[in-house]
Amino acid sequence: MEVHSSTAGAAAPPLSPGDFRELFDSVDAFLFDCDGVIWKGDKLIDGVSQTLDFLRSKGKKLVFVTNNSTKSRKEFAKKFGSLGISVSEDEIFSSSFAAAMYLKVNDFPLDKKVYVIGGEGIIDELQLAGYTGLGGPEDGKKTAEWKSNCLFEHDKSVGAVVVGLDPFINYYKLQYGTLCIRENPGCLFIATNQDAVGHMTDLQEWPGAGCMVAAICGSTQKEPIVVGKPSTFMMEFLLKKFQIDCPRMCMVGDRLDSDILFGQNAGCKTLLVLSGVTTLSALQDPANDIQPDYYTNKVSDFLDLLGA
Amino acid sequence: MEVHSSTAGAAAPPLSPGDFRELFDSVDAFLFDCDGVIWKGDKLIDGVSQTLDFLRSKGKKLVFVTNNSTKSRKEFAKKFGSLGISVSEDEIFSSSFAAAMYLKVNDFPLDKKVYVIGGEGIIDELQLAGYTGLGGPEDGKKTAEWKSNCLFEHDKSVGAVVVGLDPFINYYKLQYGTLCIRENPGCLFIATNQDAVGHMTDLQEWPGAGCMVAAICGSTQKEPIVVGKPSTFMMEFLLKKFQIDCPRMCMVGDRLDSDILFGQNAGCKTLLVLSGVTTLSALQDPANDIQPDYYTNKVSDFLDLLGA
Repeated sequence: MEVHSSTAGAAAPPLSPGDFRELFDSVDAFLFDCDGVIWKGDKLIDGVSQTLDFLRSKGKKLVFVTNNSTKSRKEFAKKFGSLGISVSEDEIFSSSFAAAMYLKVNDFPLDKKVYVIGGEGIIDELQLAGYTGLGGPEDGKKTAEWKSNCLFEHDKSVGAVVVGLDPFINYYKLQYGTLCIRENPGCLFIATNQDAVGHMTDLQEWPGAGCMVAAICGSTQKEPIVVGKPSTFMMEFLLKKFQIDCPRMCMVGDRLDSDILFGQNAGCKTLLVLSGVTTLSALQDPANDIQPDYYTNKVSDFLDLLGA
Repeated sequence: MEVHSSTAGAAAPPLSPGDFRELFDSVDAFLFDCDGVIWKGDKLIDGVSQTLDFLRSKGKKLVFVTNNSTKSRKEFAKKFGSLGISVSEDEIFSSSFAAAMYLKVNDFPLDKKVYVIGGEGIIDELQLAGYTGLGGPEDGKKTAEWKSNCLFEHDKSVGAVVVGLDPFINYYKLQYGTLCIRENPGCLFIATNQDAVGHMTDLQEWPGAGCMVAAICGSTQKEPIVVGKPSTFMMEFLLKKFQIDCPRMCMVGDRLDSDILFGQNAGCKTLLVLSGVTTLSALQDPANDIQPDYYTNKVSDFLDLLGA
């Protein structure tokens, strides 16, 4: 996929009514990031529900592409439902799903196991794909003690370690994952994503998967295979499902280094919303070299911009 | 300090009796790393005690330079004592001490606090230097929950975060340290060291401080100030204490990227021992570009080499 860099160098303009009309007419699908775009923690961002209804009423396909790996697609669909938004599993592409699909398309043997540093979402998606996940929430309360004459054992049949956001990270999991990667021949090191921080709650940001992934990079001195944004790995599945050309999609996200870069890497149009981690000053910082096609404050600006 | 690179490019030779006689006569002090050189976990490596006695009897100064920050110098002296070796606090230069000294020589204000991700050793050394350490073991059992309308509070008077090896690492500490570095203006990010793994127990290696430091790099997108090896920061204190020229010191360690590089950066002679994390094949791997002056199996080889 080509790298879309028409705006490289120039600062992105704010989305005007005219720009949005043009954008709206030129795309068939809107791809949305979730955290910081649709919701913050468990709170829906104002006006999102009406905006999504409006887009659907105009025949636009809606797709949700999230680096959040703590939930499976099924659990994400439930979360949407609990917030009053009807979204089907098929419309959701999460990095938990991407991790399972990476193993599948690379013919990862079914008799090998997968050690998970991360949430239930990864374990669930692995299981749906036919794989056995170890670790995850189950190892959240385990402890690792330094004792003489005592070996910390790990499963030699683990052939991949998947690392995602893990609020129950501990030394046990770090040692387990590190041993698998260092000692099991050919063991894969897969990162759901490398986001530094995220809006896990409405009021502030918290360390993201980039924190746990970096920890394992630090202990193993290895670099991971990244399956979430900005990697375009998920795009292949999305294209198969929706059969829309990338230039007729618009990626809407709050992060430059994952969402906007993902959109650009895939050749989509890109729109940054300022309702999440990126501030206007960060966008306009001369050190920032990732510029979306446009930016706006929040998703519900769409309604005002079209006079809907 | 000049970079000592006389052996760069050439593979290090094993230490012969002739080499060791020459080395022995040309140095006044032996600088030893501890983990993997003196002990593994709580087990003394065979013959270490007799070797240190012998070196002292021949008038050599012994200095212990360790990246292990879990203990203060006082606690390290106790550990030596419990293993039957008499070492004074003055002979120990630990990265916990280095972290406190870094703040001191940089006039870190006494009314600012220091948040610690790491062990009691860092807290103790900070206190000895007149500083108030927060976190450390005290935060080992704290949990951080994602709740709506709930702010994770942090102390705005924290002016430095010190990160070292922490077997009780958790999401609470990661969020606390991340918030201080991201939100407290001018907050320093100090790493005791960046060792990937270490022989925390006799039978195997475990994630080292490099794991926790990388996690904070991942969430803050900042690089730390490193005070332990291979940084030569500690060397200034060592020189003040012992008044021996660097070329008349020999650094003995088991790690290429911390011990040997530290010795070379400081202009010392260097000897790798294979009793810790580095294998002979790792030393001789063409991809390895750090070559000590010599290597040998273990410290007690000194006795055989001199026919003592």
